[in-house]
This record gives sequence, C-alpha cells and structure tokens, in this order.
Amino acid sequence: MDAIVLLDYAGVAVFAATGALAASRKQLDLIGFIFLAAVTGIGGGTLRDLILGVPVFWVIQHLYILVCVTAAIAVFFTAHLLESRYKLLLWLDAIGLAAYCVFGAYKGLLFTGSPVVAVVMGVLTATFGGILRDVLAEEPSVLLRPEIYVTAALTGAVVYVLLTVFGVPLFVAALLAFLASFAVRGGALAFGWTFPRYRSRPGRAPEDIP
Amino acid sequence: MDAIVLLDYAGVAVFAATGALAASRKQLDLIGFIFLAAVTGIGGGTLRDLILGVPVFWVIQHLYILVCVTAAIAVFFTAHLLESRYKLLLWLDAIGLAAYCVFGAYKGLLFTGSPVVAVVMGVLTATFGGILRDVLAEEPSVLLRPEIYVTAALTGAVVYVLLTVFGVPLFVAALLAFLASFAVRGGALAFGWTFPRYRSRPGRAPEDIP
Amino acid sequence: MDAIVLLDYAGVAVFAATGALAASRKQLDLIGFIFLAAVTGIGGGTLRDLILGVPVFWVIQHLYILVCVTAAIAVFFTAHLLESRYKLLLWLDAIGLAAYCVFGAYKGLLFTGSPVVAVVMGVLTATFGGILRDVLAEEPSVLLRPEIYVTAALTGAVVYVLLTVFGVPLFVAALLAFLASFAVRGGALAFGWTFPRYRSRPGRAPEDIP
Repeated sequence: MDAIVLLDYAGVAVFAATGALAASRKQLDLIGFIFLAAVTGIGGGTLRDLILGVPVFWVIQHLYILVCVTAAIAVFFTAHLLESRYKLLLWLDAIGLAAYCVFGAYKGLLFTGSPVVAVVMGVLTATFGGILRDVLAEEPSVLLRPEIYVTAALTGAVVYVLLTVFGVPLFVAALLAFLASFAVRGGALAFGWTFPRYRSRPGRAPEDIP
Repeated sequence: MDAIVLLDYAGVAVFAATGALAASRKQLDLIGFIFLAAVTGIGGGTLRDLILGVPVFWVIQHLYILVCVTAAIAVFFTAHLLESRYKLLLWLDAIGLAAYCVFGAYKGLLFTGSPVVAVVMGVLTATFGGILRDVLAEEPSVLLRPEIYVTAALTGAVVYVLLTVFGVPLFVAALLAFLASFAVRGGALAFGWTFPRYRSRPGRAPEDIP
Repeated sequence: MDAIVLLDYAGVAVFAATGALAASRKQLDLIGFIFLAAVTGIGGGTLRDLILGVPVFWVIQHLYILVCVTAAIAVFFTAHLLESRYKLLLWLDAIGLAAYCVFGAYKGLLFTGSPVVAVVMGVLTATFGGILRDVLAEEPSVLLRPEIYVTAALTGAVVYVLLTVFGVPLFVAALLAFLASFAVRGGALAFGWTFPRYRSRPGRAPEDIP
C-alpha cells in the first residue's frame, strides 16, 4: 500500500512542478506559480475522484496542497538555473503521467472492479492535469505534439490492470506498470518515437472550405 | 424507454466521430483518435451526471467506451475518403447536439423534476462535448461560429420539456424534440441562418484600450 | 446568513455580466450572451459544489439561472452605451472575484472544517468562472495578465478564514474579506500593482529549443 501512496504523492509533486515551470515561461508572480502548480498537480486526481464518486483526495488530506505549494516555491527560486525549462517540463510530465496512469487505474479498479473503466480512468486522469496546465497557461498542447503521449498512459494503465488481474502483487504490478509507461513516453521524448499518423492532409481553416 | 436509450448511444457515437475527425485534421495517431473521440463522446454526459449527482453513465456501463473506440477506428481508416472532414464534423455535431439536448433534458427532468434545470442540463450537456473537443484539439470554437448553435440545443430541450409537461408520450416527445433541434441547427448550417447579433463593434485587444 | 446569500447572488450576477460582455466583444446573438453569462456565472460555484460533494446550488434553486438570464439580457441591450466593455468586464470580474472567494471559503469551511481546504476552495471557485469565460470566448486569459489577480482571491479567502477562526461574526468577517479582496484587485487594476515576477526570460516556442 505504501508504494502506491508514494506514487500518488510523486505524481502530484512532479505535475505541480510542471505547472510552475509553465508559470515561469509566462513570467507570472509567485502566487501565479502556486496556482498553476496546484491546478496541474491536483487537477487529474480531482477529475478521477469526481467521476468515481468518491471524496476528492485533497479535501480529505490537505498535505497534497502543501506539496504543490512547496514544488511551486522550489521552481520559482531555481528555474533560472535551467537551460531549457520546457524540456524539464516535458520530462517531469512524463514521470507524472507514468505515476498517475498507474494510480488512476489502481483507484478505478478498486472502486469499480471493471478493467475497462480502470484503464480509461488511468488514461484520463494521467493526461488531464497536463491538459489543464496547457490550456490555462496557453502553452502548446502536449496532447497534440507529434511524439507518443496518450499511448504511454494507456500502456501503464493496461500493464497495471493485466498484472493485477493475473494476481501479481500490488507493489510489483505498480512498479512494472510505472516503468513501462515511463519507458514509452521517455523513449518518445528521447528518440522521437511516433506511431503511424493519420497523414492524408492537415485540416483547413473553416473559411477555406468551399 | 428503448428509443431514449438509442438516442443516448447515437449521441455518444456521433460526438465520438466528430472528435476523431478533429484528430484527423490534427494528424494524430490512432490512440490520439480514440482519446479525442472518447473525450468528445462521453464529456457532455459526464458533466451532466456529475451535476445531477448520479453515477457517471460509462462507469456503470462500459459499452459506451467501446462505442467511442469503434467510432474512432472507423474514422481513422475512412476519413481520407471525405472531401471535407470539417463539414462532416459540423453535421455530425448537429446530430449529436440534437440527441444530447433531448437526452440531457430527459435525465434532468427525471432526476430533478424542475423544467428550468432540465432545459439548462439539456443545453449544457449537448454543447459541452463539442466545446471540450474544440479546446483540446485547438479547433475554431463551434460556439463562436456565426450561425445559430446554442439555440438549436435550447429548442430541443424546451420542446422536449414542454411536450412532456403536457403529457405527450416519451417516444413522441423525444422524436419531435430531436427533429426540432436538428432542423434548427441543420437549417443554420445549410442556409447560414443567424439571429440578430450584437453588432455595435467587435472587441479590441486589451493593449488597444486607453 | 442573509449577507452571505446576498454575496452569492451578487457574485453570480456580476460574473454573468462579464460573460455577457465577453459575448458582446465576440458579437454573438442573444442566446450566445445567455449561454456565456450562465457558464461564467455558475461555473465557479458548480466546481465548488462538485468538489465539496454537496448538491449543485443551481440544481436546488433555479433562481440563479434566472439571474444569469436577466444579466445577459440587460448587457445585450446596453453594452453599446459603454466606451470600453473590456474595462467594465475587468472591474465586474473584480467584484465577482471578491464575492466568490469569500463565499467559496465560507462554504468550504462549513462543509470540511479545514482552513487550508477552505482557502483553496475560495481561490479555485473565484477564479474558475473567469477562466471558463476566457477559454470559451477565446479572450485573453485574465489569469496571465500582468497585474495581481489570484492574490486578490487568496487575500479574501485568507482574511475570511482567519477572522472566522478568531471568532469574528460571519457578517463582519465576510464584509471585511470582500473589501480586502476587492481593494487588492481594484488597486491592481487602477494602479497596475504587480508582485515581483519571475523575470529570467520568457518561454521559447518548442521548435526553438535545441
């Protein structure tokens, strides 16, 4: 159980850091850092808990909020040391994605018992924090980037659910699923892995359509 | 009852297809198609169920997820055959809007008994899936297009609620409301119907305001 | 109790008016005005109630919907009289922010008893309506503007929670917190108050990062 809780806190902390990095790219003030860090850090899990119909995690345990505040302050005072904040944002986002797709699938399976719902829950909640961050900070959407993204969340959620269904202990299943997800997204970032894309032609602007 | 359930699945399927068409315009991979299809297909209904405080429909019945996956795969392999994916997107969105405004009003009336809340629920949930799609895919917002849009959802919801209040059987009320909504939005798409718009002057950018 | 209910209705009405002003800047029709007014007016409170796990306020009492409709109609027929709709939008947004951060903190404290959660609830719900408005109307995000914004919501929520914890009567605490929040945001708007911002350098576009 402890390992899965650690994964949860780790996911919140690194997603919060990505929110703070987006704030630094927009040159916000410290409160803006904390706001974007909190929304990114707790956004995915909030959606997960609302959909599952369980009490929202940070309303029950407000330590999560303090984790976000700490991450935001740390980034505020250290982001200038980095050569590329956006690259760090993408890599931390990859860690958060891997942590959250496993934790989302874990919680989805725990409360619904349905493998399909657990996988959807893992994917939705792993990606939603980053989506919120990109929309709120008007950053280029990580969802629309060419390299594999959603697939990494899907991999982690599917691996976790399959291993659990086959009776693998929680700790091992969570660790392997986390590593599988991070390997997919990390490989995509490092080597530009992509899937065959729909290539026929890009969309036209509405006014160019006869 | 069967007719209204059919309306629900039809709404999910066509909204999912619009999400997949948006994905094709952004040249995403198959998983990206499925993700956008699922978010668009189940987004409006998820908001509806959260606000009504009832279990989220696809957590109870995961067939809805499979409908979205199927729609996404079908679009992935056929979208290149279309001359204008954006036009099809708008027309399918019109069908989804008509189906969802009726189903949203039906469920809102069922669970709250308030005609006002039922109408609001119909409108919000019929438009929210498309809004999510446009924000996530960075598409031009269907909400801000010149032709009538929200009004079509309002028409369907109001017609359904009025007919039901006057004792018209569920099947007839749902069918007439669906047709009324689709006629309004379809007419707007085909003939460019608009309402008198607020015309005084467009908004200026913040930096141009003295 | 009456004072706090008044604050709630005032918050909904002025946020609704800002939504309608955004609609006028986009030259939408009357139904578009009502839609954006309603989403902005009830969006923040809806998120608050969902997270707190209590029935959504406008599902229980649909007078809130009628307040939004009235505000939208009033703006539709008077917005042309204004010299700068965007300035009015910002000032009404400041009033709504001040009203909602106090009401959000009040309701958060009432239902969770946790000061930390109450403050977060006040800030999130005060800012969420405006965020929704800006995203849906494709307006420049008020969140990313240079002057102090989130801090004003934070001030109101913290003042309310502190005064309440120290036993100050509800009416006095709510009034002082409202005034504190409005003073901070109003000062920021009038005099361009800012906090030290993260200044190292703005974010680069992803394609410019080596």
